[in-house]
Amino acid sequence: MAGSRRPGRNFLFVPGPTNVPERVQRAMIVPMEDHRSSSFPELTRPLFEDTKAIFKSREGQIFLFPSSGTGAWEAALTNTLSPGDRVLAPRFGQFSTLWIDLAQRVGLDVVIQDEEWGAGADPARIEEALRADREHRIKAVLVVHNETATGVTSDIGAVRRAIDAAGHPAMLYVDGVSSIGSIDFRADEWGVDCAITGSQKGLMLPAGLGIVCASRRALEAAKTAECRRAYFDFADQTKANATGYFPYTPPLPLLYGLREALRCLSEEGLEQVVARHRRLADGARAAVRAWGLTLCAKDPKWHSDTVSAVMVPEGINGAEVIDIAYRRYDLALGAGLSKVAGKLFRIGHLGDLNELMLLGALSGCEMAMRDAGIRIEPGSGVAAAQEQFRKGREG
Amino acid sequence: MAGSRRPGRNFLFVPGPTNVPERVQRAMIVPMEDHRSSSFPELTRPLFEDTKAIFKSREGQIFLFPSSGTGAWEAALTNTLSPGDRVLAPRFGQFSTLWIDLAQRVGLDVVIQDEEWGAGADPARIEEALRADREHRIKAVLVVHNETATGVTSDIGAVRRAIDAAGHPAMLYVDGVSSIGSIDFRADEWGVDCAITGSQKGLMLPAGLGIVCASRRALEAAKTAECRRAYFDFADQTKANATGYFPYTPPLPLLYGLREALRCLSEEGLEQVVARHRRLADGARAAVRAWGLTLCAKDPKWHSDTVSAVMVPEGINGAEVIDIAYRRYDLALGAGLSKVAGKLFRIGHLGDLNELMLLGALSGCEMAMRDAGIRIEPGSGVAAAQEQFRKGREG
Amino acid sequence: MAGSRRPGRNFLFVPGPTNVPERVQRAMIVPMEDHRSSSFPELTRPLFEDTKAIFKSREGQIFLFPSSGTGAWEAALTNTLSPGDRVLAPRFGQFSTLWIDLAQRVGLDVVIQDEEWGAGADPARIEEALRADREHRIKAVLVVHNETATGVTSDIGAVRRAIDAAGHPAMLYVDGVSSIGSIDFRADEWGVDCAITGSQKGLMLPAGLGIVCASRRALEAAKTAECRRAYFDFADQTKANATGYFPYTPPLPLLYGLREALRCLSEEGLEQVVARHRRLADGARAAVRAWGLTLCAKDPKWHSDTVSAVMVPEGINGAEVIDIAYRRYDLALGAGLSKVAGKLFRIGHLGDLNELMLLGALSGCEMAMRDAGIRIEPGSGVAAAQEQFRKGREG
Amino acid sequence: MAGSRRPGRNFLFVPGPTNVPERVQRAMIVPMEDHRSSSFPELTRPLFEDTKAIFKSREGQIFLFPSSGTGAWEAALTNTLSPGDRVLAPRFGQFSTLWIDLAQRVGLDVVIQDEEWGAGADPARIEEALRADREHRIKAVLVVHNETATGVTSDIGAVRRAIDAAGHPAMLYVDGVSSIGSIDFRADEWGVDCAITGSQKGLMLPAGLGIVCASRRALEAAKTAECRRAYFDFADQTKANATGYFPYTPPLPLLYGLREALRCLSEEGLEQVVARHRRLADGARAAVRAWGLTLCAKDPKWHSDTVSAVMVPEGINGAEVIDIAYRRYDLALGAGLSKVAGKLFRIGHLGDLNELMLLGALSGCEMAMRDAGIRIEPGSGVAAAQEQFRKGREG
Repeated sequence: MAGSRRPGRNFLFVPGPTNVPERVQRAMIVPMEDHRSSSFPELTRPLFEDTKAIFKSREGQIFLFPSSGTGAWEAALTNTLSPGDRVLAPRFGQFSTLWIDLAQRVGLDVVIQDEEWGAGADPARIEEALRADREHRIKAVLVVHNETATGVTSDIGAVRRAIDAAGHPAMLYVDGVSSIGSIDFRADEWGVDCAITGSQKGLMLPAGLGIVCASRRALEAAKTAECRRAYFDFADQTKANATGYFPYTPPLPLLYGLREALRCLSEEGLEQVVARHRRLADGARAAVRAWGLTLCAKDPKWHSDTVSAVMVPEGINGAEVIDIAYRRYDLALGAGLSKVAGKLFRIGHLGDLNELMLLGALSGCEMAMRDAGIRIEPGSGVAAAQEQFRKGREG
Repeated sequence: MAGSRRPGRNFLFVPGPTNVPERVQRAMIVPMEDHRSSSFPELTRPLFEDTKAIFKSREGQIFLFPSSGTGAWEAALTNTLSPGDRVLAPRFGQFSTLWIDLAQRVGLDVVIQDEEWGAGADPARIEEALRADREHRIKAVLVVHNETATGVTSDIGAVRRAIDAAGHPAMLYVDGVSSIGSIDFRADEWGVDCAITGSQKGLMLPAGLGIVCASRRALEAAKTAECRRAYFDFADQTKANATGYFPYTPPLPLLYGLREALRCLSEEGLEQVVARHRRLADGARAAVRAWGLTLCAKDPKWHSDTVSAVMVPEGINGAEVIDIAYRRYDLALGAGLSKVAGKLFRIGHLGDLNELMLLGALSGCEMAMRDAGIRIEPGSGVAAAQEQFRKGREG
Repeated sequence: MAGSRRPGRNFLFVPGPTNVPERVQRAMIVPMEDHRSSSFPELTRPLFEDTKAIFKSREGQIFLFPSSGTGAWEAALTNTLSPGDRVLAPRFGQFSTLWIDLAQRVGLDVVIQDEEWGAGADPARIEEALRADREHRIKAVLVVHNETATGVTSDIGAVRRAIDAAGHPAMLYVDGVSSIGSIDFRADEWGVDCAITGSQKGLMLPAGLGIVCASRRALEAAKTAECRRAYFDFADQTKANATGYFPYTPPLPLLYGLREALRCLSEEGLEQVVARHRRLADGARAAVRAWGLTLCAKDPKWHSDTVSAVMVPEGINGAEVIDIAYRRYDLALGAGLSKVAGKLFRIGHLGDLNELMLLGALSGCEMAMRDAGIRIEPGSGVAAAQEQFRKGREG
Repeated sequence: MAGSRRPGRNFLFVPGPTNVPERVQRAMIVPMEDHRSSSFPELTRPLFEDTKAIFKSREGQIFLFPSSGTGAWEAALTNTLSPGDRVLAPRFGQFSTLWIDLAQRVGLDVVIQDEEWGAGADPARIEEALRADREHRIKAVLVVHNETATGVTSDIGAVRRAIDAAGHPAMLYVDGVSSIGSIDFRADEWGVDCAITGSQKGLMLPAGLGIVCASRRALEAAKTAECRRAYFDFADQTKANATGYFPYTPPLPLLYGLREALRCLSEEGLEQVVARHRRLADGARAAVRAWGLTLCAKDPKWHSDTVSAVMVPEGINGAEVIDIAYRRYDLALGAGLSKVAGKLFRIGHLGDLNELMLLGALSGCEMAMRDAGIRIEPGSGVAAAQEQFRKGREG
């Protein structure tokens, strides 16, 4: 066995799952209990209300499915649309690709707008497509807010304005899996009809809860939507949730964990959480610049505050950097997926993180890159990030 | 706050979720990790193999969905059948009712065989129906092995023999949610094509994993089945699982918990686990007899070893017994559902239980029944159960 | 490995350590931290204050030693007395014997008053001895409040009155290890100069904290006391505690656990905690009577509300009952110690307990006694305890 | 509450307590149990044996006291020496000062050899003193192996050789609190008669176990030693430990934690653990050099592999660096104590650590130092440490 143990903590810098805070970890250690008991709603009823805060929604209704975020994708689509319904969806990374694939599988007719990987949704093109759709056959626009594969954040407010400018009644569905709880998100203000997230990113929980925040309009649409659904049915949830229960046995540790995670976000303050993600991301980007490397995101306007996809120089395999980082330095980085496989490595910087954690990770990136033959100055990225962080600090 | 804390442990005797053993609880306290790392399959690959043991399957393939057992119901049906396909399903309790409802929602044509609540699947009627189906339009027979609502266990071996006697090619799907890991179950021997369970019963875990064990024939059927599916798609799982991964972020604590729970079952020995459930159930039934009451299960052949549904005398509301038990004695019992609402209370005796836990619960039943006005002899049920347990002990 | 796992929970009915409540268990799962940090006193300072509540002391000072209760015995004596000092100590069980032994080892001259095992401290004899001590050579009276070995509770208020009646200046030291937090205890009212407890009984924590509540008079005596001490020195603690720190690294999990345990006691209400222990003890005693057996405590006035020592009939070895209970039924009972070895078994009923837990344990006692050849009526004790509990319940 | 939560993990770089590994944390979550049960020795008996490995002792006997390391100091002295016995003790830092103080309190006559803070024990002076002690009045030599206050490691092998060279029968007592389990330690080879440690450093546990490894000679001396002792008595422990028990209630979580911590050390391999501490310390020292600063340790031969005490430039208060590090960057550093208060800050680099954790901490030191006005090059120390670590890595 000698040599088999890895000392110290793994540095988890994939863009999800993210680190679970100690107190959330503790909160999930619960004995099982009767989820039909008279006291159970004391736990659950505030949850539905409090979860809305992270979506910045007052109007919406929260659905908590025992599933991954993928399940929440399916729930949003099947509850509100019918087979053959047309939807418009920009595609510019692995997760937008997968959501489109899922939409097709459940029977929707997806009009795909391909964008370059490294760019995001183009409001002008969306507006154009909607204007062209005079018969209003497009029932919804599907946008991935933060494309985790490329580190690109789209401007959802601009998408909303584009829809409005086109005078088109399409609903707006947004995948906020790697943004909600980390990057500014405004369901009500942006008129998001289905906002989708999972428990394992900004909510700092293990995977296992797929969450949808549905607008009144989406709920109205659910009454006539004909996609087949059973497990993910909104109506079953709505009926049971009304009194604080679930249509089937819920994952108790995640419900208790969610309560504690929401308290964490509330105590730090959602605006401060967003600002912290910005500050950490600024540090990571300063490091990338100091290394003389570039991000996959083509333009600063696309820069994601939760994940930075770092392009490796020609002749270097990004997968090797990742492999060295993991084996030698116990640092988990995200890989390039699909079109960008091997061309980049991704630093996830979301969730329960602080400056020193990220500086440790950036140190690991530096060592792994140098081991892999990338010529960067040791300490350069760390120094640049430090300077960035010191500016942002006082008190 | 004074008076607000309930001292001591809750006695959890609902038929699921069940008590999580200390060591399984511990095993689930894990830091998040990269579920795409090169070492992740060291965890997952043995899981798929070891989970088969509790189904007594060598031939089958295990699917682990982040969902409740209801999701596994949906997965089994949508992956192997096409809209309009006819299935035969006995109905004799709340869970068989719900499964049938789900089958209808996903588009199947369900031929329902109603049995009295308190009875189980009738192999003779199944054989008859299959014989009558000369065109073999019935694609599958759906049976709930252990009907949790009434405490009735059906004879799946007999159902298999009925199908064979009819010379009918229908597949056999079995809901083993409240039996597998507690009551003898033999997927291969009984030719079960889809065996379904959840994590929160015999597996002694929180809810959150829906599990299907699919036969080769079911996997073959999946190739042409046309029910719409995305989240619950077998093919996505099969592809990712082959190398130890998942198509979306898995619930890590449950995977680690599953590993430990399987070790628990293996160390106790699956046969001993089944024998223990029988022994505990015999004790519970001895108590019910000593109280002068009857079970919902109409005949000893239907007696469930995981849940006993106790009929309350005329003029007494079972819900009041349950309410008193919960409020005064911190004992959680299962309620009568639907047709039997108010007529019974249910003692779940499955999972990580021993004699003294059950004797404590039986004491709580005695006190609550007496408080509710049921005239039973105090200590009578406990004494009968003690005698039953002492017989079964030596060493 | 088959057969090696014991399913379900151990029933822990030794008189300490006691069950740790779930929430206290969780509270102890803490990352290590700098115990010299500026924020550390936020944890510790309220602890010293809040711990006084369970002693019913306003005047006293709390000392928290990383030690067992034995360490607190030593701390109380060595900080306040000098070698050769005379102390008076009734002896009537294993723990009073051990404390006297410790007093002798640290150099004190102990005047021992032997009482029958099964009786407690005799205030009349104490008064007599003090009256006879005209020169006031006796510096302190040492009494074990609750003698855990025999299930005997002495009347400390009466001891105080005896000291006062004798007009003697002796200090009063009380071992409340198995009473404080469970049985009514009044440090200020009774003029207890050193009250001693440990973390593993009424405080529902693991062992590891020895606690002394010292009166002003004891603190005054500490200034001139000459017993050698270093680790257990009051002055080092006083100096460091004043600002919220400790003279050496404290056991962090226990401090966090103590905070949560005090909250538990406060939320239930200390009076309710005491009443609950009385109610449970009444149930246990009703069971013993129903079995036709007797307690070691010779008279109801000595009955302990935290431990019942049950005499086994002639010809039966109490150790065998205990052994059977542990091996067959996973029930841990306390053994007869020293003079009463083999003659009794002890049921500890203190800490985080409720009625059903105790009824489960009483069932285990019944089965084990019958297995060991004691002729009791099965269920008789359980029925008697149930009746007792039902009387005490409403709402 | 907004703003009150500190996101991410605290970087704990005080020289104890140290980070508890996840699996050790888990192992300590145990239900209480009867510490007098027949199965309890299955836990404890291997512990005594396995703990010897970290002392590199085969001959010694392990004592596990529920106490801090200070208690183990007291245990070692009081069990083996008598009041008035003379001992020789070099003094060169806060912890050697405190041990000497304790020795005096328990009644020993301590001959103090003062060394400069920043130096360690001087074998030549020890030899000289022993040679001069012709009557062999010196019964023992007390040396702190790793002086935590100054980051100085003494050469215990050389001390042993000095004693031997003097032909003196004095016993050798070594405080290995911040070395054992981290820095090479050889109780048998060096003839250490009492080796002392605590649970909260190299053993990666919370504080709460004081551990002594006593040689046969020390055990022989215990038979006649007359220092008063009760709680810390070797004989009581020896008698109870022989069958796997303790003379008083042991702290169960720490025993289970110790078992797991020993497994961790064994799986990594004790030699690799020592090498890792060396590698991390080399990185820290490279950083200090790159910053242009010096260590408190006067000479490389004194360099500690578990703690580096970094001298701050004239005009800077080390306490301010520590304060900024804690408040702004959530980094806990050790303060300068007593003679060196304000003159340095200490980086503890022991226990469950890896390179990235230390690099994060070094980044924090850099930012805090710059914030406090120390002119160092940002990233310089981190870069130097990276280079050091990359050299030490392969595979």
